[in-house]
Amino acid sequence: MARWRSGTRERLQATALQLFAEHGYDETTVAEIAAAAEVTERTFFRHFADKREVLFAGQDDFSAMFTGPVADAPDGTPAFSLVRRSLDAAAAFFPRDRRDWSRGQQRVIDAVPALGERELGKLATLKIHLGDALRAHGIDEPAATIAAETAVTVFHLSFAQWIADGEDRDFAAIVHERLDALTRVVHPGS
Amino acid sequence: MARWRSGTRERLQATALQLFAEHGYDETTVAEIAAAAEVTERTFFRHFADKREVLFAGQDDFSAMFTGPVADAPDGTPAFSLVRRSLDAAAAFFPRDRRDWSRGQQRVIDAVPALGERELGKLATLKIHLGDALRAHGIDEPAATIAAETAVTVFHLSFAQWIADGEDRDFAAIVHERLDALTRVVHPGS
Repeated sequence: MARWRSGTRERLQATALQLFAEHGYDETTVAEIAAAAEVTERTFFRHFADKREVLFAGQDDFSAMFTGPVADAPDGTPAFSLVRRSLDAAAAFFPRDRRDWSRGQQRVIDAVPALGERELGKLATLKIHLGDALRAHGIDEPAATIAAETAVTVFHLSFAQWIADGEDRDFAAIVHERLDALTRVVHPGS
Repeated sequence: MARWRSGTRERLQATALQLFAEHGYDETTVAEIAAAAEVTERTFFRHFADKREVLFAGQDDFSAMFTGPVADAPDGTPAFSLVRRSLDAAAAFFPRDRRDWSRGQQRVIDAVPALGERELGKLATLKIHLGDALRAHGIDEPAATIAAETAVTVFHLSFAQWIADGEDRDFAAIVHERLDALTRVVHPGS
């Protein structure tokens, strides 16, 4: 389950995070990241458009993680089951041994407003892609947009809890707790 | 139902919106807004901290619109009923004769990234205040946060639909359509 941190791209990400944590995001240059990861700047820019993007996994991969299970679901799968499939697939991309990295990543993001905005933009794009996938799978409006927004909200809240101090449960357990809470909120008698 | 646009504050907002639409947001100065509304700049700054805030109603009033009905609800009201009360109260603040103003306001916001960020920040603050109100009313975590996020999402999506081209239904009808869609999406036991 260490695939996420093998390879040059992942080494650049890990190195960058360490330098950001030690010296600050603004104070760290691409040249320094490349040197510390023992690659050229040219190699850095083959993997990332700029310094900011080193903190954010590729948007296409990130969206595909959520939309793939929707596209692959049997025809007629209800919207909430599609949301569950999507979130379960996303949870699998946050294994235990990634938690410390994610905590460090979030500390850097929280310290720099422009990174926080990039994160919100990434989630907004995800909502659009997931809404598209749900509509393509036959979910009507406004249900598709509501379901996509809800799924991304549950993901975001689950991620925040997963990296919270002292939290030790798996990502999937945290997602399920939130989906169950949502179900009880919307259907109090259930 | 014209209370929202009476008084100096509202006249400044209407005047500013007209100038932003005609000349562009960045190109319009506070001095020009004040002159066109026939007040001094000093009066402008008594109502608004800066030019940007003229487009955004006071955050306190905006949050109170959602949290007031939660605080006033009978003890033991279920979370989803609190969300409905909150959204119904919010809907009452968007009467028909405000729709054109809201459409103009959104066109200005959409054209200027910094204003879009301010709007997202306003919604994020609302989520926090509404979550606080729900917890104060006895709703546990994670249900309170889930309910607050869901309520603000439904509000935001409803507002977007309310100002969409050709949309003529009341805000409340649009909110209810989205709450009903959410109820159908979220299946107990699925």
